[in-house]
Amino acid sequence: MSSNMKALVKPGPGPGLRLIEKPIPELTDDGVRIKVLATSICGTDLHIYNWDTWAASKVKAPLTVGHEFCGEVLEVGPGVSRFQAGDYVAAESHIFCDHCRSCRTGQRHICENEKIIGVQRDGAFAEQIVMPERCVWRTPTRLPPEIATLQEPLGNSVHVALAAEVSRRHVLVTGCGPTGLFAVAIAKTCGAASVTAVDIQDYRLSLATQLGADHTISPLKCDLVPRVHELTDGRGADVVLEMSGNEQAIEDGLRCLSRGGDYRFFGVPSERISIDVARDIIFKGARLQGILGRKVWDTWHDTARLLEAGLDLSPIVTHKLPLEEFETAFDLIRQGKCGKIILYPGECAL
Amino acid sequence: MSSNMKALVKPGPGPGLRLIEKPIPELTDDGVRIKVLATSICGTDLHIYNWDTWAASKVKAPLTVGHEFCGEVLEVGPGVSRFQAGDYVAAESHIFCDHCRSCRTGQRHICENEKIIGVQRDGAFAEQIVMPERCVWRTPTRLPPEIATLQEPLGNSVHVALAAEVSRRHVLVTGCGPTGLFAVAIAKTCGAASVTAVDIQDYRLSLATQLGADHTISPLKCDLVPRVHELTDGRGADVVLEMSGNEQAIEDGLRCLSRGGDYRFFGVPSERISIDVARDIIFKGARLQGILGRKVWDTWHDTARLLEAGLDLSPIVTHKLPLEEFETAFDLIRQGKCGKIILYPGECAL
Amino acid sequence: MSSNMKALVKPGPGPGLRLIEKPIPELTDDGVRIKVLATSICGTDLHIYNWDTWAASKVKAPLTVGHEFCGEVLEVGPGVSRFQAGDYVAAESHIFCDHCRSCRTGQRHICENEKIIGVQRDGAFAEQIVMPERCVWRTPTRLPPEIATLQEPLGNSVHVALAAEVSRRHVLVTGCGPTGLFAVAIAKTCGAASVTAVDIQDYRLSLATQLGADHTISPLKCDLVPRVHELTDGRGADVVLEMSGNEQAIEDGLRCLSRGGDYRFFGVPSERISIDVARDIIFKGARLQGILGRKVWDTWHDTARLLEAGLDLSPIVTHKLPLEEFETAFDLIRQGKCGKIILYPGECAL
Amino acid sequence: MSSNMKALVKPGPGPGLRLIEKPIPELTDDGVRIKVLATSICGTDLHIYNWDTWAASKVKAPLTVGHEFCGEVLEVGPGVSRFQAGDYVAAESHIFCDHCRSCRTGQRHICENEKIIGVQRDGAFAEQIVMPERCVWRTPTRLPPEIATLQEPLGNSVHVALAAEVSRRHVLVTGCGPTGLFAVAIAKTCGAASVTAVDIQDYRLSLATQLGADHTISPLKCDLVPRVHELTDGRGADVVLEMSGNEQAIEDGLRCLSRGGDYRFFGVPSERISIDVARDIIFKGARLQGILGRKVWDTWHDTARLLEAGLDLSPIVTHKLPLEEFETAFDLIRQGKCGKIILYPGECAL
Repeated sequence: MSSNMKALVKPGPGPGLRLIEKPIPELTDDGVRIKVLATSICGTDLHIYNWDTWAASKVKAPLTVGHEFCGEVLEVGPGVSRFQAGDYVAAESHIFCDHCRSCRTGQRHICENEKIIGVQRDGAFAEQIVMPERCVWRTPTRLPPEIATLQEPLGNSVHVALAAEVSRRHVLVTGCGPTGLFAVAIAKTCGAASVTAVDIQDYRLSLATQLGADHTISPLKCDLVPRVHELTDGRGADVVLEMSGNEQAIEDGLRCLSRGGDYRFFGVPSERISIDVARDIIFKGARLQGILGRKVWDTWHDTARLLEAGLDLSPIVTHKLPLEEFETAFDLIRQGKCGKIILYPGECAL
Repeated sequence: MSSNMKALVKPGPGPGLRLIEKPIPELTDDGVRIKVLATSICGTDLHIYNWDTWAASKVKAPLTVGHEFCGEVLEVGPGVSRFQAGDYVAAESHIFCDHCRSCRTGQRHICENEKIIGVQRDGAFAEQIVMPERCVWRTPTRLPPEIATLQEPLGNSVHVALAAEVSRRHVLVTGCGPTGLFAVAIAKTCGAASVTAVDIQDYRLSLATQLGADHTISPLKCDLVPRVHELTDGRGADVVLEMSGNEQAIEDGLRCLSRGGDYRFFGVPSERISIDVARDIIFKGARLQGILGRKVWDTWHDTARLLEAGLDLSPIVTHKLPLEEFETAFDLIRQGKCGKIILYPGECAL
Repeated sequence: MSSNMKALVKPGPGPGLRLIEKPIPELTDDGVRIKVLATSICGTDLHIYNWDTWAASKVKAPLTVGHEFCGEVLEVGPGVSRFQAGDYVAAESHIFCDHCRSCRTGQRHICENEKIIGVQRDGAFAEQIVMPERCVWRTPTRLPPEIATLQEPLGNSVHVALAAEVSRRHVLVTGCGPTGLFAVAIAKTCGAASVTAVDIQDYRLSLATQLGADHTISPLKCDLVPRVHELTDGRGADVVLEMSGNEQAIEDGLRCLSRGGDYRFFGVPSERISIDVARDIIFKGARLQGILGRKVWDTWHDTARLLEAGLDLSPIVTHKLPLEEFETAFDLIRQGKCGKIILYPGECAL
Repeated sequence: MSSNMKALVKPGPGPGLRLIEKPIPELTDDGVRIKVLATSICGTDLHIYNWDTWAASKVKAPLTVGHEFCGEVLEVGPGVSRFQAGDYVAAESHIFCDHCRSCRTGQRHICENEKIIGVQRDGAFAEQIVMPERCVWRTPTRLPPEIATLQEPLGNSVHVALAAEVSRRHVLVTGCGPTGLFAVAIAKTCGAASVTAVDIQDYRLSLATQLGADHTISPLKCDLVPRVHELTDGRGADVVLEMSGNEQAIEDGLRCLSRGGDYRFFGVPSERISIDVARDIIFKGARLQGILGRKVWDTWHDTARLLEAGLDLSPIVTHKLPLEEFETAFDLIRQGKCGKIILYPGECAL
């Protein structure tokens, strides 16, 4: 085994990423060394590429980036009992401590000491990664690598959608980046009465339609709030899944919410948000919830089960590229001209 | 308007039903007179036909039978404000009082004073019925009469399935009479990880397959409990929907239930049931619930929404007959050689 | 029976109220004529007195004000079946339609057509009021009038506290007007691990202590956010009940909320509120809910049961006055020098 | 440190226990060696003493018995990071694997591989015990040892009561052994509308009264079912907590349950139970749940919080004895003439 590997890194403060050779990571006592078979790019990775305020405050360069991946186990540390070489795996990217009160009461997704790979420690856009055993997820071999790597971001959307009970309800999804598109597909699979997808990019709305959205709306082209009421017998959406982090989308979504409806915040706004609490929360008797990451391991099981139930993600994977072509990938994301992009660090057939 | 009508009645104590002419029912102050367009037969109707112990204790003959129907409003009483002649409607068959504590706290399905049409007061297998306004349900005209009449029994299964959260879970349905078949279809529409249908009649299992069941099992032909564990990674079914009322089915279903699983009783057993409470409830941390009727009007809205979501019931409607051929219909039910049978009291095209 | 009665009215647009003689209200078919035995003043009444923007937009003068009361039934309309002269009653002040979708699905508190007495139709600060039967609540005679009239506002706080599951949790109540004080008492009665009460008025904090608050904090005198963390092992409050409508209190309360905590909005802000959605909702996985009125009739039953369980409201009733002294009462409220003030329109012993 | 210790053991198959000297247990890598300060006796220990069918099938003698205890940490294994000598601790007696699906999804109480100390491996009625770090619970020093040892059984009752939402509801507790008595105290602390305690032993009913029961009923002296309806406005108990495992108590409790009520099974019946599923579950729309052990660590936190909230257990501790007097203790339990009995293996002041 060579002692060097290819890795996509943030070399130091400032915009851009660089593909370099660096030593393979050391195996720890509880570590699982994984040969990365496929990775996928998240909006977070774009923030890190761009080195915006959030990234500058969170990321300590130099650092290997990337947190969505799947791979094959190469070797395990002496303290590892549940995995062995040859296992096909993905991983929870939020490394939870398993000791804080959240972790000890079934809420590892709000661990008080979490470290995210590719953000606060070395990540997955590389030929190898070492993960603590407690974060590794055994994956059925019938999932091809380009789907297996999506379990992590798909899990976010599963967490969001199941926290809102979408069956037989009118669902509005604001923001059709990949997590929004996943949310559309999940809501349809779970029997939503209707799914309306909102975005300003026609490309994304067309993907939403492919994933089953009953209606798509660009707020640039039509007046969103009356349109949603029109589509829902004048009552508004029973469920709003906010996947954009955009202030206007939040304002519009809250106004579209029905009395007694469920609103879920997932997209992270970069600024404070002004909310008409009286009109949109109190007088409606609305229920709101912030959703972060995946419930570990509940959401991972739920995700696996929804894939068994027939959830079809294939329209979301719009591009497959070798890791070397990362600049192309980030360009596509910047233009909003893609669903999910798969990057392969190794020889994986495209 | 003629003052007589055709009606299928239980003329007095004892087995059998008779098709007779009888006066049309009188309109009450809060009454809605409905011309019955289609009706459907329920297992309860067979008990009444057979005049078993339950029927003998509950039914006061003479009585017009039948409680599943849809129709067109002919006229309304002076106290009625929300309906008028020409409206297309179905009705909640459990006439709730709207005054008891259950009714006043959102639980009309467990009204302390309920009277069921076709059981405790004149029912719907007739050319006309008068229903109190509070029990009438406006129905979209895009539903043909043979589907509109199914809203009532479908509502039972919707109530059962939604009380158990079927999305992404392994669901076992014990008993594939019409409510069991509906449950299969609902669980699939709501994204169950898998649906396994159990019955001893091959005819019904084949309908279950048409409605989307992933697996069907006849306990006469294979050992149910190990088979269900085999289909669920050894864990058992996350959800069991008991739609048969059969003692052996209850015993088997409880043994098939996973740790922490949800069991819903809907089929009414005719005798007391012996349960291994320690093994099947306590040590599993199981959650059980008895389900009766439909939540009024929550379940009716849910049912309408699931029909919008694409729930397809057409394979369940296996026979359409004029009311005059009721003996044929009951024969088919006795042989288990049917799904749901529609009876038309009037001129409705078959 | 005299045909005139005493009533406290808003005579026309503009500040102030006037005590006048006016005709007793007419009995309707579904009406229950009630002799008012005791009333109590709500913050809403102060808004109406002051004629602020909200009042000017909602209230159509001339109008009898007041919506919290209890009394004795004098006579009932011909359509009334559940009440008769001599019954001791209170009433739901939000007159719900019972026909809209919210009303028909167990959510009358978010009725689409509600009219509030004392706001949108004649209210209870008078010798008599006529209420529709469907809004009247039979009250046990063991409750003295000054407690019976409090069932309505107490119900608000019961609705808030039970929507947040306060048992064994650290509870923070922001705002110690009457509904905040009720919330303190309810949380203690239901076994909160601790209750911390926040207000800027020492008078109110001292009432909170009498009602069982474990800690009281004036944000004018100490730094609220670190103090609450200190009192909760550094984790923050599991539950925040927002009863003030004040922007700073909302900001502080959200920062005090623990990961995975429950926040309930009840106090109505007069302006839009700026919220750090990322920090205070998403990264915490917080659950928020807007609470309006009382669930009809669930909350009324809950309220009755909590009074049976020993909830003691007596410290909250700080003043009892004849209706004639309404100016004194409103002065006391303006100064924050009172808990709840009872106004007696009739001869009731003080 | 001496290499031998005092321990109460089941020496081999058959009735009785014996106090012997045996080697102190060996420290494991993840082990915490604890000097036992106080223990308490559970009904399970009596089954093991008596060597009934259940015990004969579960217990592999020779074995140190006992599973409720608290103590002080003496030393820790090299893999232990969260405890050190001098810590005051109790422990989860159900040693969960932390690897099975239940453990990994917040449901360690239904671990697929659990081993219970004092039943399937050496227990706590001894001077020392070694527990895996993951099962050790840090205990505040303000709890005296006779209360600290009760956290484990109290946790059972907390789990039962919180799974049933007792606030403002009429609660019936069937069986007033220690877990039933704890349930009475918890329901009162959490604001039950009323608590009715049922047992056939007057001694226990008198303890229930001391713990706050509003009503006590011996079914030997009065007709339980009508009496409970009389105490609850004819509606029955909203919540029934079944803490006896007795068939008649289960039958009676189910008949006492209100429509829409919550029934919780905790007492383990030794035989199958015959249930009138139609009358007592389906037609009532009842919700039932089996409760086992404690949610790890949710219930432990809840228990700690309820003790903070003022839950007073002191009336339940009726006897304090040195371990040597275990025969006296088991005699008292057999006669039902005690609440909880504390056994001290060491020098602890009585």
